[in-house]
Parts: sequence; C-alpha cells; structure tokens
Amino acid sequence: MKLVTYRASVEAAARLGVIVDDLVVDVAELAATQGEDLPDTMLELIDAGRPGLETLRDCLDRAEGRFPAGTATALANVRLLAPIPRPRKNIFGIGLNYVEHVAESAKTLDTSKDLPKQPVIFSKPPTTVIGPGEGIEHNKKITQQLDWEVELAVIIGTTARRVRKEDALRHVFGYSVMIDVSARDNRRAGQWIFSKGQDTYAPFGPCIVTADEIPDPQVLDLWLTVNGVEKQRSNTRHMLFKVDDLISDISSGITLEPGDIIASGTPEGVGAGRNPQEWMWPGDVVVACVEAIGTLRHPVVDATPQ
Amino acid sequence: MKLVTYRASVEAAARLGVIVDDLVVDVAELAATQGEDLPDTMLELIDAGRPGLETLRDCLDRAEGRFPAGTATALANVRLLAPIPRPRKNIFGIGLNYVEHVAESAKTLDTSKDLPKQPVIFSKPPTTVIGPGEGIEHNKKITQQLDWEVELAVIIGTTARRVRKEDALRHVFGYSVMIDVSARDNRRAGQWIFSKGQDTYAPFGPCIVTADEIPDPQVLDLWLTVNGVEKQRSNTRHMLFKVDDLISDISSGITLEPGDIIASGTPEGVGAGRNPQEWMWPGDVVVACVEAIGTLRHPVVDATPQ
Repeated sequence: MKLVTYRASVEAAARLGVIVDDLVVDVAELAATQGEDLPDTMLELIDAGRPGLETLRDCLDRAEGRFPAGTATALANVRLLAPIPRPRKNIFGIGLNYVEHVAESAKTLDTSKDLPKQPVIFSKPPTTVIGPGEGIEHNKKITQQLDWEVELAVIIGTTARRVRKEDALRHVFGYSVMIDVSARDNRRAGQWIFSKGQDTYAPFGPCIVTADEIPDPQVLDLWLTVNGVEKQRSNTRHMLFKVDDLISDISSGITLEPGDIIASGTPEGVGAGRNPQEWMWPGDVVVACVEAIGTLRHPVVDATPQ
Repeated sequence: MKLVTYRASVEAAARLGVIVDDLVVDVAELAATQGEDLPDTMLELIDAGRPGLETLRDCLDRAEGRFPAGTATALANVRLLAPIPRPRKNIFGIGLNYVEHVAESAKTLDTSKDLPKQPVIFSKPPTTVIGPGEGIEHNKKITQQLDWEVELAVIIGTTARRVRKEDALRHVFGYSVMIDVSARDNRRAGQWIFSKGQDTYAPFGPCIVTADEIPDPQVLDLWLTVNGVEKQRSNTRHMLFKVDDLISDISSGITLEPGDIIASGTPEGVGAGRNPQEWMWPGDVVVACVEAIGTLRHPVVDATPQ
C-alpha cells in the first residue's frame, strides 16, 4: 500500500490516506463506513502495528474499488504533506554509505578516502521536515554551498533493540524518499547536525510504501535532477551498509522505535563532488525519485534575513 | 520554582510537581482545588508559557503553604523521574565548550587543540534520557571507554528562530542538570551520535529550576564525582560559548521549540583526559551537581547481552 498524509483542501485538517489508482482514500473514514476503527495519522497507524495494516487491507478488499461519498478524493486535488509531518525524534542520517560517494567526498570534503568500517550516523531534527513541493530555504548569510542528496528513507515499524541482521527487516514499516539537504560550509569541526539539520533540509515523501511491497530494498534505482539536469543516478544495491545492516548496527546501542526514520545515505553525484562544484540557489528546482516509491519536486527559495 | 516530574508511589502515574520546602505539590491537583486549570506534564506547562507559570505562582501564593489533602507528598516519599521523561526531539549537545576541556580532549581524542570558532553541536536521541537514580547501562561488547560529563542543561520555553544574542535568554524556560555519557571508543569517523546517543546515556534532573530564579546562568559551580572521588569541578563562567551564544547560534539555522533541551558542554576532568585514562564500570556510582539546581546520582549497571 502507498500511504500518505494529505489535506483534501487548503483549510482541511491533515488526514491519513491510502492511494488507490488515482484516488486518495481516507483511512479512518473508510474504516468507519465498515464499522471498523482505524487512526487518522500515520504515526498512530504505525503504532497499531500489523493488525492495523491488516484491518486496512480488509477494508480496501471489502470496498472493491467503490468508495462511499466522503471517503475518497482525486489524488490530483489533494495536497500531500510529509507522510510523517512531525517525527517524534531526529531523523537518523547515514553518511558515506555508497562506495562512489565516499570517493567523491574525500576529494572535496573533510572525510576519509577509506570506506567506513561502521555506519557513519548523524541526525536531522524534526524541524527539517517539509512535505512534497515545499520550498527548501536558502539563507545566503549562512551558506553558499547548499547541496542535494537523494536517499531511500526507511520507516521503523516495531521497537528494535539489539536486533540481528537477519531479523532486521521485520522491523521495517515501509519506505519513502528523502532529500538530505546539506550546507557544506556549515560542517563545524566535523559534526554535521548544523550543516544537515537546518529548517526545511529534509524534503520527505510523497508516500510511504509498506514493506510488503518492497521485499528487497536493495534493488531500487534512485536519481535526482536539478533544473531538469540529472545529477545523481544509482541503485540501492550499491549501499555499503544495507538497510538490515543499518538497523542491526544502530539498534546495538540505540533502541529504534515505531515511526523512527533512517535516511540511508546518498550515491555519488552531489554538488560538492562535481568539478567544478555546483550548489543550489533560489529559483532552482530539485527533483528526486526512488523506484517503486515516488518522486519529490522542490523549489529552492530565498530565506535570507533582511 | 523547582519543577519535577514524579510518581507518588510505584504504581502511580507520572505527575507534574513543584517543590515547596520538603514537599512535592501536585500542580494540576493544587490548581483544581482553587478552580484553576494547570497541566499535569512538564511539556504542557512549558507550552502554556508565561501565563501558565504565573497561574502556578498565584496558586502557590494563595495556598500560603497549606496544601489540601491529596495535593502534596513528602519529597522523601516520591520517585523523581526525568523532568521531561520523553523529549520531543533529540537533545542538542555542545562539545568542547569549556576551554580546559578543549585542551584535554585534543590530547587523547580526535579533536583539535584550537578553540572552536563556532559551537560544536551533536545530538542525543530521546531514548538516552533516564531519571534520577536510574542505571547507566554498560555494554562491554560495545565499549571499554564509558566516560562522564557533568553539564548545565537549558530548557527552551518559547520558539526561537534567528534570535539575537541579547534576546536569547528570554526564550529559556529553565535549567537542569544532565550527565552527557559517552562511549569514547564509539566515535565513528568523527560523528558523535552513536558514542553519546546510546540508551541511558543522558541522566537528567532532578528538577527544572525556572529561569527567573537563575537570572545569570554563567555563574554556577558544577562538579562530578565517581565513587566519591571528585573528577570535575568548574563554573559555568568558563563556558566558551555562553547560553545566550548557543541559543542565538543554533537558532540561526535550526528553529528551537518549547521543550527543547540544550546540554551546554562539560568542563575538564573527563575520564578520557586523565593520565592514566579512567572509565566507568558496572558498580561505579557517579554523582553530578550544578549549583542552585540539584544533584544526580546514578549507578553504572552491566547491560552486556549474554
């Protein structure tokens, strides 16, 4: 299933939806028409676990594609928000997780040319999250090196503490797309949270695809364009630490919880690694896609204080 | 005021309290006896802003030290929890923020001997937080270098975006104590979240002292002992970046929100900086204090998986 958080109109409240063909079906409303009880936010659905998803599937099966008035809206007419508009903690980001990106980073950033022996983990606060189409803020008083990174985002479904690699994928609720925006000139003695953690630096969406539809997360093409020109194209098979490695590794010390998000790293082709280097500026449009999930399209907007 | 989150008995729900002499007064219950409405969690009181604190002060004034049955419990009989048991995002940690600690770190850790030009920011997930007296977990399969750091914790009261230094302290709700526990051998290509972000690595409390009682946060003694032996003793006047600098700096790119926590850095005397180096082991007891706030006392417990 493709799950979304959306507004049916500008004034409408945010709702949890599931995409069926060219419709967005309101999860809680659909359930109510069948005497079932399902939540109206993504985090609550994640918390509801496997039974919640099974109930939703049953509701969709019973509907047989016919949705009562008030339960479905044309996808073209809704405004999608980030699937989890407000995560309950910082996003876990993974640095240097595609082999070619390690090499390009070593040339121009302060990173080693050796492959990392363990995942390089950083974080992005919940205030970084923006939904599909929202502007990435460019503050030229702070940065002249705003960079792009397309990433597969992993959404945790069940609490994971000290999980073995072979059990790790069972803890995944689903997958999404994230752009890990960085101000490369804000790296600050090596710690990346300020360079990667500024407001609007985590475009996220357009949906969460449930894990049953992506049995192997390591076979997905992903790509990114800026102003229509392709900058990144790779496949998740080139990840150095796979999704199961990441979950097992993080959970060895840090308990992962339902709703946690892991941005699993970016392939080569970032602006910092190009010759000459390229950066994003107000007016640019960045488009990012992960196969089987969807596409994000974001303008860069000037947010320089006067 | 000294605000706490506490349980009046083992089975009791967590409540918001205010310390009056040797009593803990239940904030919501006290308000109810006077026909007022106040929340029963710290985060909700922070969200209620200045009017919430004023109402609480009025309630205490009207009580004149006589608290109706059911509204007060002897402090000795309650179990204190972390004042914010579950932060809404990762804690902002500040590295290398006392001059002498910069020097000791450069000798034995992978940090520069030069003073940082800007605050060095990292983060600790909400799952790091433990309340007074709870065990700091030692997993010897992961670390043989578990270290201590006593810190002044700053609790944000109102949204701060691009705040000037001279306005910064107005955004502070109050102050508390945090031990920033680190597994020094888990630094991971320089990113500190795994070394500082493991479960139980943020002992926090025992209370939040409201900002009106600490008009100048840069005059506070702080110290730490391990097994009764003093390891750290300094004063917040030795911070490189003061609390107002930190708020102004972080908020230049990352919006700070009510309930956010900044652990403002530690002075010299950490285990990594001693000769020979010293680390915490199961059975050790670490005690940390910041003047005018209170004392934390935590055992280190073995949490090595079998």
